[in-house]
Amino acid sequence: MNQENPLLEAFKETEYQIPGHGKRDISVLKEALETIDGQLESDVYGNGKVIEDFQEKIAKYLGKESSVFFPSGTMAQQIALRIWCDQKSLQKVAYHPLCHLEIHEEDGLKKLHGIEPILLADKERVITLKDVVNMKEEISCLLLELPQREIGGQLPEYEELAAISNYCRDKGIKLHLDGARLFEILPFYQKTAEEICSLFDSVYVSFYKGIGGIAGAILAGPKDFTDESKVWKRRHGGDLISLYPYIISANYYFDQRVNKMEQYYEEAKELAALYNQCYCVKTVPLEPVSNMFHVYFTVPKNELEPILRELYNETGIGLTGSLREVSNSECYFEVNIGDQYTKIPSERLKKVFF
Amino acid sequence: MNQENPLLEAFKETEYQIPGHGKRDISVLKEALETIDGQLESDVYGNGKVIEDFQEKIAKYLGKESSVFFPSGTMAQQIALRIWCDQKSLQKVAYHPLCHLEIHEEDGLKKLHGIEPILLADKERVITLKDVVNMKEEISCLLLELPQREIGGQLPEYEELAAISNYCRDKGIKLHLDGARLFEILPFYQKTAEEICSLFDSVYVSFYKGIGGIAGAILAGPKDFTDESKVWKRRHGGDLISLYPYIISANYYFDQRVNKMEQYYEEAKELAALYNQCYCVKTVPLEPVSNMFHVYFTVPKNELEPILRELYNETGIGLTGSLREVSNSECYFEVNIGDQYTKIPSERLKKVFF
Repeated sequence: MNQENPLLEAFKETEYQIPGHGKRDISVLKEALETIDGQLESDVYGNGKVIEDFQEKIAKYLGKESSVFFPSGTMAQQIALRIWCDQKSLQKVAYHPLCHLEIHEEDGLKKLHGIEPILLADKERVITLKDVVNMKEEISCLLLELPQREIGGQLPEYEELAAISNYCRDKGIKLHLDGARLFEILPFYQKTAEEICSLFDSVYVSFYKGIGGIAGAILAGPKDFTDESKVWKRRHGGDLISLYPYIISANYYFDQRVNKMEQYYEEAKELAALYNQCYCVKTVPLEPVSNMFHVYFTVPKNELEPILRELYNETGIGLTGSLREVSNSECYFEVNIGDQYTKIPSERLKKVFF
Repeated sequence: MNQENPLLEAFKETEYQIPGHGKRDISVLKEALETIDGQLESDVYGNGKVIEDFQEKIAKYLGKESSVFFPSGTMAQQIALRIWCDQKSLQKVAYHPLCHLEIHEEDGLKKLHGIEPILLADKERVITLKDVVNMKEEISCLLLELPQREIGGQLPEYEELAAISNYCRDKGIKLHLDGARLFEILPFYQKTAEEICSLFDSVYVSFYKGIGGIAGAILAGPKDFTDESKVWKRRHGGDLISLYPYIISANYYFDQRVNKMEQYYEEAKELAALYNQCYCVKTVPLEPVSNMFHVYFTVPKNELEPILRELYNETGIGLTGSLREVSNSECYFEVNIGDQYTKIPSERLKKVFF
C-alpha cells in the first residue's frame, strides 16, 4: 500500500522490530480500556474524576502544585510560554535552534502568540550556562528540552542544569522544561522527576513517547499558572468535552512503563555499542543518556535503503522504517527503546550485527 | 457526590431521562471500538486510512471538495475565520451576539488571531438579510449558526438563508456555517446537507451533539482552504499523533443516528407541545425546528429546583440536570432529543405532564 516508502513497508513486515513498544494500532486503546468499568463517567470540559485524579497524580509525581491535561504538547508549551511572557509583559523567550516549537509547529508561537524566540547554542550541542549568561537580550522565559531530541537525545550534566536554574532565578527568568521525554532521562541523572522538576518553574511531559499512550500531555506548575493555562486551553480549542480516551491510556501505560525506563536506558546503551562496532556507523550520543539515540551512516540514503531492506528480509528484524538524509554521503535514523527490544531473541539479534 | 448540584444528582438517579442519548460514560467509546479490528492502524499526524476515509466520507456528505477532522469546533471555526480574513487582508468578521466564539471561547478569536467581530441582530432573534445589508463595516466573513443554539435553536426560513448567501457572494463576503447541529435541522428544511452547505463557503459540523460521539469536528470547504486549515491545526496544537478515538466513535454514531434526525425532530415537537400545555411554561421556539428547544418557566430558579427534584422522585423521569436563571422570576433549561426519549413508556411520561 505504502509504495512511496518501501523501507517502511519492509520494516512493518519484519517479525521483530527493534525500536518502540509495538504497532500503533487500535489494540493499544482497547487494551487500556479493558481495565476500565464502562460506567465510569466521562470528564466534561476539564472536570470530573477521570481527569482530576490523573492531574493530581502527575502533579504529585512531578512535585508541582498543580497540573492540567492537554491534548498535545504543542498546545501546552505555547501556552506556558505565553503565560510567562504576559506576566513579564515581554514577548520574548529563548530556546535551542532545534526546539520543537521552532521546527515542528509551523511557527504557532509567533503567529498565534506574537512571541519572538532567541535561539541559543549551536545545532549540534545542548544549551550551556555560558549561552544563557552571554545572551544579550532580555527574555521572559528560557525553555530547556531534556533530552535534546533532534541531536540524538543529548543532556547537560546535572550541575550545569542546576547552575542554569540558579542563574535564571537570580535574573527573574522563568525556566520551562520541555520534558517530552522526562521519564526517560531519570536513570541517567539518578534523580527523581521531582528533583529535576524542582529546577523549573513549569514542566511539560508527554504520554506517547516512552510511556506509549495514544496522545496527550501534562503541563504542571504553580496553581495560578495552571489555572491560567486552562483559559488558554479553551482559547486554543483544547478544552474538549471529553479527553478520557487519552487520559485513560496515559494512566494505564504510565503505570506499566514509568519504572521500566532504567531497563530501556541499559538496552539503549547495549544496542548503541552494537551499532558502533559496525563499519561506517556511529551513534549520537556515542553512549546514550536515555532510551534514545541517533544512528549515523556515512553512506548515501538511497544506497543504504536497499541494503536495510535486504537485511530485514534476511534476518526478520527491522531497525527503522525511516531514514533521513544529512548530505549526499550521509544519513541517519532515530532509535527509541521500548518494550519490543527485549522480545528479540539474542541469537536473532546477533545475525544483524555480526 | 455532587452536592453543589442536587438537581443534577436527582436527574442522574431517575430511571428515564428525557434529553440526550444516554450517559456520557466510557461505554460509549467501548461500544464503538467493539466494531473495530484491533489491528487497524492509528492515524499519524493527520494521515492514514482511519482519518482519510472519514474526511472523504463527510466531505462527500456535505458536498464539499475536502474536509479535515479537528479535535474541536472551537479550533476549527477560529481557523476558518482566520483563513478567510487573511485571504482578504481584513481581520473583521460578523456573527450573532450569542455566537459560540463570542461567549464560550474566552475570546480566543481576538486573543490568538486578532480578529474583530461585528455583532449582528438582537440577542433574541436570528440574523436576517436586512442585518447583513445594513452592516456599515466591511468584513471578510459572515458566520451563521444553524440552528442558533442559545435562543433555543431557531432558524431563518430557507429563502432568507439563500438570499443572505447570494448577497455575500455578490459582495465578496465569505459565508461560514457553524453547523454544530447541521444534521438536526435537515428535516425542517427538507433539504440535504449538500443543499444547505452549497450556500456556504466553509462548514463546521460536530460529532458529539445530535450524533452523540465522544468529541471532534469536521471543517469542510475547497481544497486550498482545508489544506491551509491543516497548517493552522498544527499551530493550534490540534494535529495530534492519533485522533482515532474520536474519529472511530464519530463514524460509528454518525452511521447509527444521522438518519434518525427526523424522528428526533418529530419527538421534539411532541414534547414541546406537552410543555406548552403547562402553567407558567413556554418553549422557545414555540414549535421546535430541530431536535432542540428551550423551556422557560416564569418561576424563580430556586423555587423550581425543589419542585423538579420532587417530580423526578415521584415519576422516575428526569427533565433536566441544569436550570439557568434568566431573572429573579424566570429560568429555563435546554432540551435535546436523542435516543432516550423514545424509550420512555408513554404512560410514564403522561404522569409528568398531566
